Amino acid sequence: MAVDTVLTIAEIRSVVAKWRQAGEKVAFVPTMGALHDGHLSLVLQARAEGARVVVSIFVNPLQFGPSEDFARYPRTLKDDVEKLQTVGADVVFAPAAAEIYPVAFQTSVINKKMSEGLCGKFRPGHFEGVLTVVLKLLNIVAPDMALFGKKDYQQWRLIERMAKDLEIPIEILGCDTIREKDGLAMSSRNRYMSAEEREESALIYKGLSSAKAAWERGERSLDKLTALFKDSISQCPRMKIQYAEIVDRFSLEPAGATVAEKSLVMIIAVLFGDVRLIDNLEF
Amino acid sequence: MAVDTVLTIAEIRSVVAKWRQAGEKVAFVPTMGALHDGHLSLVLQARAEGARVVVSIFVNPLQFGPSEDFARYPRTLKDDVEKLQTVGADVVFAPAAAEIYPVAFQTSVINKKMSEGLCGKFRPGHFEGVLTVVLKLLNIVAPDMALFGKKDYQQWRLIERMAKDLEIPIEILGCDTIREKDGLAMSSRNRYMSAEEREESALIYKGLSSAKAAWERGERSLDKLTALFKDSISQCPRMKIQYAEIVDRFSLEPAGATVAEKSLVMIIAVLFGDVRLIDNLEF
Repeated sequence: MAVDTVLTIAEIRSVVAKWRQAGEKVAFVPTMGALHDGHLSLVLQARAEGARVVVSIFVNPLQFGPSEDFARYPRTLKDDVEKLQTVGADVVFAPAAAEIYPVAFQTSVINKKMSEGLCGKFRPGHFEGVLTVVLKLLNIVAPDMALFGKKDYQQWRLIERMAKDLEIPIEILGCDTIREKDGLAMSSRNRYMSAEEREESALIYKGLSSAKAAWERGERSLDKLTALFKDSISQCPRMKIQYAEIVDRFSLEPAGATVAEKSLVMIIAVLFGDVRLIDNLEF
Repeated sequence: MAVDTVLTIAEIRSVVAKWRQAGEKVAFVPTMGALHDGHLSLVLQARAEGARVVVSIFVNPLQFGPSEDFARYPRTLKDDVEKLQTVGADVVFAPAAAEIYPVAFQTSVINKKMSEGLCGKFRPGHFEGVLTVVLKLLNIVAPDMALFGKKDYQQWRLIERMAKDLEIPIEILGCDTIREKDGLAMSSRNRYMSAEEREESALIYKGLSSAKAAWERGERSLDKLTALFKDSISQCPRMKIQYAEIVDRFSLEPAGATVAEKSLVMIIAVLFGDVRLIDNLEF
């Protein structure tokens, strides 16, 4: 059976309401489309929970800065729906921008702490756009659980924090990053790279992995761990590190002196020409 | 039967869940306590809708500025609960501040347009605090409808706007201002006034009423209408107008040149020593 695509808020609410009446569990996977195996793994995980699965596809203008790639962001709805069918998603919610942001729209959700560092420092307004659209989508779909990829680590933690802070009665799940064979984290933006860049981009995961390996051997100097990542990236001169930080896994605050007692994650962003790639690894 | 007072989020959720299971409608009246007939009228209106009524009493620190009256704001829980009993409220939710704002709290809701003028101009951060706590309370109580007094006109419109913008599936009702015999709008802050001030404060409603009477006689000059209000207040030299504006009833934008086609409201704030009083009248 084909996956239904619904365009309006009223329609997706009525689909979910019918499942609820039948006592079914509902899971939600919000995406911006251009789906890859990372997205599909979220759908599979939701199905493994025995839930009906709603996938939204909405390229959210609010989370792109004026100089960012909103216009060229890949839009591949037909392909996306076919892929979702293969993994057994139940319905696709693909609203137009005017359905989500009518003319008088003026309310938004902000985070005043965990959004400031890492990507937030380089993408002002980005997480305000993310939190606002995710809260809207959660209110529209009203699922039992929503699934997010840990590839966007800061985003996942901010959404988890928002759900706690605003008492949103929905379980927020972070799911493991899915990687290409050479370790590159899957991303809709990978397709921006040339074949040569694509090959060189494997240095990102290599760098993260060598930092993690050193951590596991007992290295506790954050400077030395970060230097291992930088060494890997420096092998490709066209690749520039935007940031590379080792932070507390929950607060995303710098690990600081008490590093030994904390659960840490190394989070990085790399600029490769006009392509921006992010990744992370939990230590 | 006494009105139950519950202190925790878990407990109020379980009370409401039982009503839901029984197919009952649930109405919510959020307050900061120090209840007067205005609040009680909201409860009566909720009961008239055939709903179970949850009243929250929470003096929200987030909506007070550093120089405002958070510390001296009246706290009269015992009296409040007795009053609520007389009008048939079903349950009082009176959480401690730490229940609503745990240590790691860092997410908030902002409005970027309608919150800027009127009270927002003089109380930076106030409406951010209001919207954030109201969204939390709406998520906690999860009622079918929530009732707000039109005395706080800008607050009501901002909450109504938030509910639309963020797709909160709860009906937001604005209820008529309840007034003392001399026309003064009921407010928890009226008790700050001396007997003499209390008497003089009747000039506020007199001023609004004479502006409205002129409007009804066909006066369309906003300057002349505003002057009528100012004339009334000027009879008491210790009373200072903080602002007095005639704005569009829905957008709260200045009425401007197309005044004749719009539904308007005159909104004012008056300073009387260290007491700040607000009121409004729809034209």
